Amino acid sequence: LQVAYAQNVAHPNLTVTQADIEAIRTQLSEVPGAQAALTSLRKKIDAVIALPMDVPVPQDAGGGYTHEQHKRNYQAMYEAGLLFQVTQDTTYLNFVRKMLLAYADLYPTLGIHPKPKEQTPGKLFWQSLNEAMWLVYTIQAYDSVASQLSAEDRTLIETNLLRPAASYLSAGQPQTFNKIHNHGTWAAAAVGMTGYVLNDQTLVKQALYGLDMSGDAGFLQQITQLFSPDGYYAEGPYYQRFALMPFVLFAKAIDVNQPELKIFEYQDQALLKAVRTSIQLSYNKLFFGINDAIKDKGIDTIELVHGIAIAYDITSDPALLAIAQRQNNILLTGYGFRVAQGLDQGLAQPFQYQSMQLRDGQAGDQGALAIFRNGIDHGHQALVMKNTSQGLGHGHFDKLHWLYFDNGNEIVSDYGAARFLNIEAKYGGHYLPENNTWAKQTVAHNTVVVDEQSHFDGDWQVGQKSAPEVRFFAVSDDIQITSASIAQAYPGTNLTRTMAMVKSASLEHPLIVDIFKVTSKSKHQYDLPLHFQGQLISHTISATAHTSKLEPLGKNNGYQYLWARAQGPIKPGMSQVTWLNENRFYTYSVLGGDDQQMIFTQLGANDPNFNLRSESALIRRVKSAKQHTYVSVLETHGEYNGTSEYTKNARSSVVELVASSAAGVDENIDVVTVTLVSGESFSLAVAEDSSSTAEHTLELNGKTFVWTGPYSLLTNTKN
Amino acid sequence: LQVAYAQNVAHPNLTVTQADIEAIRTQLSEVPGAQAALTSLRKKIDAVIALPMDVPVPQDAGGGYTHEQHKRNYQAMYEAGLLFQVTQDTTYLNFVRKMLLAYADLYPTLGIHPKPKEQTPGKLFWQSLNEAMWLVYTIQAYDSVASQLSAEDRTLIETNLLRPAASYLSAGQPQTFNKIHNHGTWAAAAVGMTGYVLNDQTLVKQALYGLDMSGDAGFLQQITQLFSPDGYYAEGPYYQRFALMPFVLFAKAIDVNQPELKIFEYQDQALLKAVRTSIQLSYNKLFFGINDAIKDKGIDTIELVHGIAIAYDITSDPALLAIAQRQNNILLTGYGFRVAQGLDQGLAQPFQYQSMQLRDGQAGDQGALAIFRNGIDHGHQALVMKNTSQGLGHGHFDKLHWLYFDNGNEIVSDYGAARFLNIEAKYGGHYLPENNTWAKQTVAHNTVVVDEQSHFDGDWQVGQKSAPEVRFFAVSDDIQITSASIAQAYPGTNLTRTMAMVKSASLEHPLIVDIFKVTSKSKHQYDLPLHFQGQLISHTISATAHTSKLEPLGKNNGYQYLWARAQGPIKPGMSQVTWLNENRFYTYSVLGGDDQQMIFTQLGANDPNFNLRSESALIRRVKSAKQHTYVSVLETHGEYNGTSEYTKNARSSVVELVASSAAGVDENIDVVTVTLVSGESFSLAVAEDSSSTAEHTLELNGKTFVWTGPYSLLTNTKN
Ligand SMILES: [Zn+2]
Ligand SMILES: [Zn+2]
Repeated sequence: LQVAYAQNVAHPNLTVTQADIEAIRTQLSEVPGAQAALTSLRKKIDAVIALPMDVPVPQDAGGGYTHEQHKRNYQAMYEAGLLFQVTQDTTYLNFVRKMLLAYADLYPTLGIHPKPKEQTPGKLFWQSLNEAMWLVYTIQAYDSVASQLSAEDRTLIETNLLRPAASYLSAGQPQTFNKIHNHGTWAAAAVGMTGYVLNDQTLVKQALYGLDMSGDAGFLQQITQLFSPDGYYAEGPYYQRFALMPFVLFAKAIDVNQPELKIFEYQDQALLKAVRTSIQLSYNKLFFGINDAIKDKGIDTIELVHGIAIAYDITSDPALLAIAQRQNNILLTGYGFRVAQGLDQGLAQPFQYQSMQLRDGQAGDQGALAIFRNGIDHGHQALVMKNTSQGLGHGHFDKLHWLYFDNGNEIVSDYGAARFLNIEAKYGGHYLPENNTWAKQTVAHNTVVVDEQSHFDGDWQVGQKSAPEVRFFAVSDDIQITSASIAQAYPGTNLTRTMAMVKSASLEHPLIVDIFKVTSKSKHQYDLPLHFQGQLISHTISATAHTSKLEPLGKNNGYQYLWARAQGPIKPGMSQVTWLNENRFYTYSVLGGDDQQMIFTQLGANDPNFNLRSESALIRRVKSAKQHTYVSVLETHGEYNGTSEYTKNARSSVVELVASSAAGVDENIDVVTVTLVSGESFSLAVAEDSSSTAEHTLELNGKTFVWTGPYSLLTNTKN
Repeated sequence: LQVAYAQNVAHPNLTVTQADIEAIRTQLSEVPGAQAALTSLRKKIDAVIALPMDVPVPQDAGGGYTHEQHKRNYQAMYEAGLLFQVTQDTTYLNFVRKMLLAYADLYPTLGIHPKPKEQTPGKLFWQSLNEAMWLVYTIQAYDSVASQLSAEDRTLIETNLLRPAASYLSAGQPQTFNKIHNHGTWAAAAVGMTGYVLNDQTLVKQALYGLDMSGDAGFLQQITQLFSPDGYYAEGPYYQRFALMPFVLFAKAIDVNQPELKIFEYQDQALLKAVRTSIQLSYNKLFFGINDAIKDKGIDTIELVHGIAIAYDITSDPALLAIAQRQNNILLTGYGFRVAQGLDQGLAQPFQYQSMQLRDGQAGDQGALAIFRNGIDHGHQALVMKNTSQGLGHGHFDKLHWLYFDNGNEIVSDYGAARFLNIEAKYGGHYLPENNTWAKQTVAHNTVVVDEQSHFDGDWQVGQKSAPEVRFFAVSDDIQITSASIAQAYPGTNLTRTMAMVKSASLEHPLIVDIFKVTSKSKHQYDLPLHFQGQLISHTISATAHTSKLEPLGKNNGYQYLWARAQGPIKPGMSQVTWLNENRFYTYSVLGGDDQQMIFTQLGANDPNFNLRSESALIRRVKSAKQHTYVSVLETHGEYNGTSEYTKNARSSVVELVASSAAGVDENIDVVTVTLVSGESFSLAVAEDSSSTAEHTLELNGKTFVWTGPYSLLTNTKN
């Protein structure tokens, strides 16, 4: 007869400890923020308890009734368990006990779920991922009440429910359990946390080191392999947030039960770094919408509420409190209570959003995400250049793509995922077919499309093999700049892009300079889209508008969704397009040449179900060329004030844009010169040789410039 | 030699008095809100003073440099004058003096403006309206400094500048001065205020009673004729706000100088009513966007900042303080200071937004604007039914049109004006051509279009002759309802619409029931558009989508701007369309019949300059019929929560919609029965006879209902 560990230790002792509970009980009255959270949580759970208990026989797939009910149940058990600990009100104890016993009755009767999802079915749920999430919450609920249960109850619950569930998620599905993937992390967390509560060292060791306990798989390997050395998760911020939850909860449990593992110190503080990096991956509370991202997800999601609180509890970093303040969601755990205390004491300090390069890949050698920021205040400018790896099946075909944020808004945008999460009427709330056919395609991004084909021919497994090479990254007061290239997105064609955020004394906001060089041995069609948010105000293109008939721009790879609204030649020299977003103007200045055409598109063709948002893009098309260098400058300027009836600085200050690729003694330097209406002028020189030690010489306007390194910002004096 | 009055009285004594200034000076240190306003205003004006003074020779039309500079100048003089009074810092005095003398030099040299606008040119400005605004500000500035000027300066300024300007605006342009129109009010205010400061009783009397001082024209007539008995201004809220400014400023000056006129008591407190009504004409700070309205204008515009403060100063109504709080703009006038004191003392009380009918027309007999509200909180529901008169040249052809607001947003919308105010690149910032050809047209509104022609054949002067007849208006706990009809919008065709906001115990929010009856002796095509804001989620129409080619829906009267995206038959019985706006769902349930078609449109055809926003509408078309009754129900429901990943109540609760127009013993009763998923059901019966005393009898579901008055809400018990 197996002896339950639960009777040997006083609980709780997992993510919340007896000392935590003691602290909350004795100090609650001094922390108004936590008191309010308690009142609110009691109200919520009291309403749940007032309903008849419902532990249904599993039947529905994701989104269906039994699926959602089991989700509601584990959430309610977890929260009721916390309430019992904090309030000692046995109503909550009885609720958790009764539901655990109901599950202990049900679980032994279950086989594989009747609507199994692919190769990874659960029993309560269609997929084992949900089963692991269920156990992560349920084991915490059990930990909250175990000390108050009879030996008989405990034996029943552990023998019929918790052990079999942990066993099913580990030995029962080695392919998932041993996988270095966030589904594996959820399984490891569920199994390991169950091991601690049941004092089962085998479960704990399997969770930490893999089923065979060799260390080739398991939680520690997942920490090592799933985050880059800069705390970046290859699938991107939307999935980084989701993946963080089992990491931080299990780590917290490890820290309580095996402090000697120093889990938060592990791998150069990989987990704390991942939490902080998640915040850096946001603008105005929302995550950068790259890859399959639902764009309304941000730093106030529950995963980051736990993540920030656990990280604050360990580090006492006051900048994390500033994030917690914006989350406005106090947890009644020990770590949540310490956040509430910190906030009540006014300890929060501004979070330092920074310009940074986040290397991708376990070794940091799979490209990088570059982030340039100008300031940290609410309306600051942020440029994101996506030079990362493919990011598995949720990755988009968007090599060298960029986003721009300003004034609290996304200005140059990524469509994000084509999905109405949890909205049954929209394809059951799943990813829409248009996610594959539009949102992932290259033309849906701000990067070059060759011959109307997506990068890697739209095959993510091919994409997985080749990340962009980051040529250089540098941040200084005047200029923030990065450059990357990739030769494998289109075999035989090289894409090299340099993007810079340049400050100018005579401008309100920095300029963005973009030099995108495409070279191939054979002739191709090149398209460079710019997806912008706002109302088009004016442009200098002699365009023909399709005013009485609209047709799609193409047939495949996303082009079938774009109505061509207008089109015209981009003449040699500079052309400009200005749009208005909220109360600010944005002017995109571009260089003509190579018989470029500007195509003004609007999303919505071939969309009978109104699945797509009606967004606008500019596409610069070079019909047939071996190589082309797209030169562009984006200026943020002016103010439209409807309330006070004035408009300031509605015209662009960029009056001339000149590029040369053979501008002097060194043939391999691209030079872009921008002249402003103030007379001020600067040149950005970018060498082909990205070495930081190479010396370059340039003749420009009769002067000779000499510098070391791949780029130089040359300020020209007035003639 | 004319003796200037300015030397005989101590100034200021116009809109601000010496007592006001005394109060501000002595109590400022106790009122942090006013101190902050002072600091901020000093900073602003100090920056202006630091620049070289610029009083240019008039040259440019509206929007041009000299036009904008003279506007900046009068604003700066006015504010510097206040600063001098409050701070006694002679820097401000000297600035105002110097600029007044510059104008006194310039003005005598001027003839009619070189780019005169139509029949009403000014001298400093292209139109005399701007000249009047200039004088309203400038005379207040002069009043602030007059006591400190030498007799010589005063004589120069009064003789060369103020008198000639007042004379030009009165005797110099009798057609405008005597007009009962807001341009006339600006002129009257300018002239009358100048009269007070210069102690010129002739100017004062002309301002109050018209050029001939008979009382047939002038300010008092303007008060009487321009506002309805409910304080509604015929051009609508956007122009009501603009018109208010000279009314409240001149009234304040009258109250200081001739308190015996009891100007704020005049005509049943017409001006105070107009101020309060302006607030009632808003939702979430923004004015209802009817007629030529720029939709980002709201209660925080400067006109209402003065209006609310002056009204508060007189009434001490704490609800006005709540509005001032939202305006967040403290004026350094006496009335502004008292607002700051009230706010600092925490006296503000919630403003009571109410359901109300605002009668239009001087006698209140030119139709009405009906407003139904459900609550007063931030996200409350508001329905606006526009049964008003045409509203002159800025009026839209939108008889019986409606708007709906919920959750802080406009849900069923009016396009407002097609104009990018002050944005030079968009048609010089003037009304766009599309304002006439799209925004004013009937199809741009949520009301019936017959034969693709606009109401009154698009002639506002014809429209001016006929207002809708309001059949009834009633507000109770369960139902808010109004009905109106008009026979002149289309000769030979009668339009009668009844709209109700109905509460149901089983629903989160009230339902809107809409019964629109069109009757004609001959056959016509009828279209009923619904312009909605949001993303289409689902519908039950068997529609054919134009997925690979879009064409405009028509050729004229606004139809040329609508792309037809999809279209299909509305079968007999109920059809539904659901959209999502922010985090809430809206379902429009409609009845089929008469071979109705549903057309899904998107704005943007024939728009080569991208002047229009890309908005969506549903159009229900009856191709050929003598009469048709459109029956619709709009339900507000559910929640989409992206952060916490759940969706509640995404499906409509309306499961059946039945209409009958011959439902029993009385042939002239329209009955619409709505059945909800809860089993609950109600019928709305509307009699043709709108008398409040007529008795009606109806047999419905085997029961007999008897009631008095034009409508009845019948709650059906379950079978
Ligand atoms: Zn993307
Ligand atoms: Zn309108």
